[in-house]
Amino acid sequence: MTDDGFADQLDAAVRRCGNPVLVGLDPRAESLPPGLIPSPGDWNALAEGFRVFCRDVIDVVAPLVPAVKPQAAFFEQLGPPGMAALADLVRYAQQRGLLVILDGKRNDIGSTAAAYAEGYLGRDGQSPWGADAMTVSPYLGDDSLQPFVETAVRRKAGVFVLVKTSNPGGKMLQDLVVAGRPVYRHLGEYVESLAAQTAGASGYGAVGAVVGATYPDQLVELRRAMPHTWFLVPGFGAQGATARDVAGAFDAHGRGAIVNNSRGIIFAYSAPKYRGMAEPTRWQSAVERATRDMIAQLRAETPAARLVPAGSPSA
Amino acid sequence: MTDDGFADQLDAAVRRCGNPVLVGLDPRAESLPPGLIPSPGDWNALAEGFRVFCRDVIDVVAPLVPAVKPQAAFFEQLGPPGMAALADLVRYAQQRGLLVILDGKRNDIGSTAAAYAEGYLGRDGQSPWGADAMTVSPYLGDDSLQPFVETAVRRKAGVFVLVKTSNPGGKMLQDLVVAGRPVYRHLGEYVESLAAQTAGASGYGAVGAVVGATYPDQLVELRRAMPHTWFLVPGFGAQGATARDVAGAFDAHGRGAIVNNSRGIIFAYSAPKYRGMAEPTRWQSAVERATRDMIAQLRAETPAARLVPAGSPSA
Repeated sequence: MTDDGFADQLDAAVRRCGNPVLVGLDPRAESLPPGLIPSPGDWNALAEGFRVFCRDVIDVVAPLVPAVKPQAAFFEQLGPPGMAALADLVRYAQQRGLLVILDGKRNDIGSTAAAYAEGYLGRDGQSPWGADAMTVSPYLGDDSLQPFVETAVRRKAGVFVLVKTSNPGGKMLQDLVVAGRPVYRHLGEYVESLAAQTAGASGYGAVGAVVGATYPDQLVELRRAMPHTWFLVPGFGAQGATARDVAGAFDAHGRGAIVNNSRGIIFAYSAPKYRGMAEPTRWQSAVERATRDMIAQLRAETPAARLVPAGSPSA
Repeated sequence: MTDDGFADQLDAAVRRCGNPVLVGLDPRAESLPPGLIPSPGDWNALAEGFRVFCRDVIDVVAPLVPAVKPQAAFFEQLGPPGMAALADLVRYAQQRGLLVILDGKRNDIGSTAAAYAEGYLGRDGQSPWGADAMTVSPYLGDDSLQPFVETAVRRKAGVFVLVKTSNPGGKMLQDLVVAGRPVYRHLGEYVESLAAQTAGASGYGAVGAVVGATYPDQLVELRRAMPHTWFLVPGFGAQGATARDVAGAFDAHGRGAIVNNSRGIIFAYSAPKYRGMAEPTRWQSAVERATRDMIAQLRAETPAARLVPAGSPSA
C-alpha cells in the first residue's frame, strides 16, 4: 500500500501507462467468447465462466492500462456465486498491477452508507471487497456522501459520484433547471468542494465524478467548473461517443480523466473490425487490439497525447 | 406463487395481519445480543452471526407482520459470506410466510439496470436472490427505471423508488425547486404514472415510493398526488418519527403504506423501555414486545386502525 491517496495513485498510474483507458469488466452470458458459454440458468457455472473470462481479459490489459472497472450488476445478477467471483477478480486485477474501480452506484443514509464504504473501499485486507474506488449515487444528498469521503480518505481510496450520466433518461432529474442552472451543475460544484478538500500532490481529490462522454458540451462545462475532480467518463464506443467527444474531459496536461470502454474492448472479437478473432485464443488478441486502438485514438484526438509515460524521454 | 401482482400481494398481507409494519433487518456487529457477537474482523463468523440473529428475528415477527426489509449494505459489508447469508435469509423469510423487500437502492443504465432487476426480483427460483421487491435510486432517470418496472410486472414483483428520503441531507437535491415545485414532487408524479399503469385489483401498482416519516407534511402532499403508489415509509422510531407522523401515508381505508422499523425492533432489548431483556432468550421477547407495541401505536394513531384482518368479524 502506498502513502499516496487514490487521486495521486490514479494520476501516477495514468502517467506510467501513458493513457487514461479504463477497461470495464461487464461480463454478459450471451456475449462470452465461444468455449466460455456455460449452460443457461446455471448460476454457479456462469459465475465460473465470468471469473475465467475476466481473468483472461485482465491478463491482456494489465500491461497496457491503469485501471479496470468491474460492473457489480453483472456479478450480482448471478447471486452469491457471482459475488464471490467479483471479490476474486478485484484481488486478481490488483495483483496484476491494476487499480480497481468497483461500479456499483451504491448509497444509503448515515450509518448504512458507512457500511457500504467500509465494506467496499480499501485494498490489502482493509475491506472484504478491497476496491481502490467505487461509484456512488447522489440522490440521498450530502450527508449520504460524507461516510464515503471519510472512509476513502482514511483508506487511500476513492469515490466517483454520479453527476451527469451517459444515458438519455439522465436528463429527467439531472437537467432540471434550478436558479438558472441544471441540477448536475449544482451537484458538480458540491463534488468539486469535496475534491478540493481532499486534493493530494496531483491537484486532484479523493472524490471524483461520473460524467458521460455522450454529452461533450457538458464535459467541457464541468471540467472548467471542477478543476480538482477526477472524471470517470463512460459512454465511449458502444454508447456512441468518440475520442473527440471526450477531449473536453481532460485538463491542459491530459490529466484528470479516465475513459471507460466495456463491450468495445472485452467483446471486441464480435465487432466487424476484429472479425475472425473469435476462436478460443484469438478473442484475447481482439481485446489487445481494441485496447491499443482506443489508446491510439485518445492520444490522437485528446490532450491525453501530452501524458508522458514515466521513464520515457518523450511521449 | 400467486397470480396477483406484488401490489395486491402486499395489500392482502397487510390486511391479513391487520397492520402495516415492515421489520427492517439491519444487523450490526456492535449491536448483536450477547452470545451472538463474534470476534471482530472475522467476516465469515460475522456473516454466520447475522444469519442466526436474523433467522431468530424472523421466527418472532413472521406471525405478526406482513413483510421484512433486509438492508443489503450490512450484509455486503462482510463481503461474499455476507451475501450468502442475505440470500439465505430472503428464502427463509418467505418460507415463514413473509414478503421480502430487499433494500439495496440499486440502479444503473439500460441493460445494466436490467441485470439488477433480473438478479434480484422474483421469488421461487425466478432469480438467484429471489426478492419480492427491491428499492431503487432514481438519479439516472426514467430509462433506468423501466427495466425494473418491466421485470417486476413479469415476475409479480415490486419496486420502490426513492422519492423523499428520511435523512436531513436528502433536501440537497430532492427539495430543489423547479418550475415552482420540488424535485421530489416531479419525480413523485412520474412514479405515480408508473404505478397507475401497473395497478392491480387493490388499486395500487407494482411501482412504489420511499417517502420518509420524518417529513409528515410531504407525506400528506405525496399521498394526495400519488393515489396508486405504495409508500415504503422509513424513519419511524430510531430516526425520530412517531405513529402520528406517519398517519398521512395511508389512504382513507388505512391501506397503501408500510412503515419500517429496524433498530427499534430488532435491537429492542437495548432500549430502556425493554430493559432486562438482554439475556440469550429474552432478546427475542423484546423483539416481540416492540413489534406488538408498534402495531398498537399505528392502530391507535393512524388510519391503519381500519385494516380488518381477514377472517375477523371486526378490527
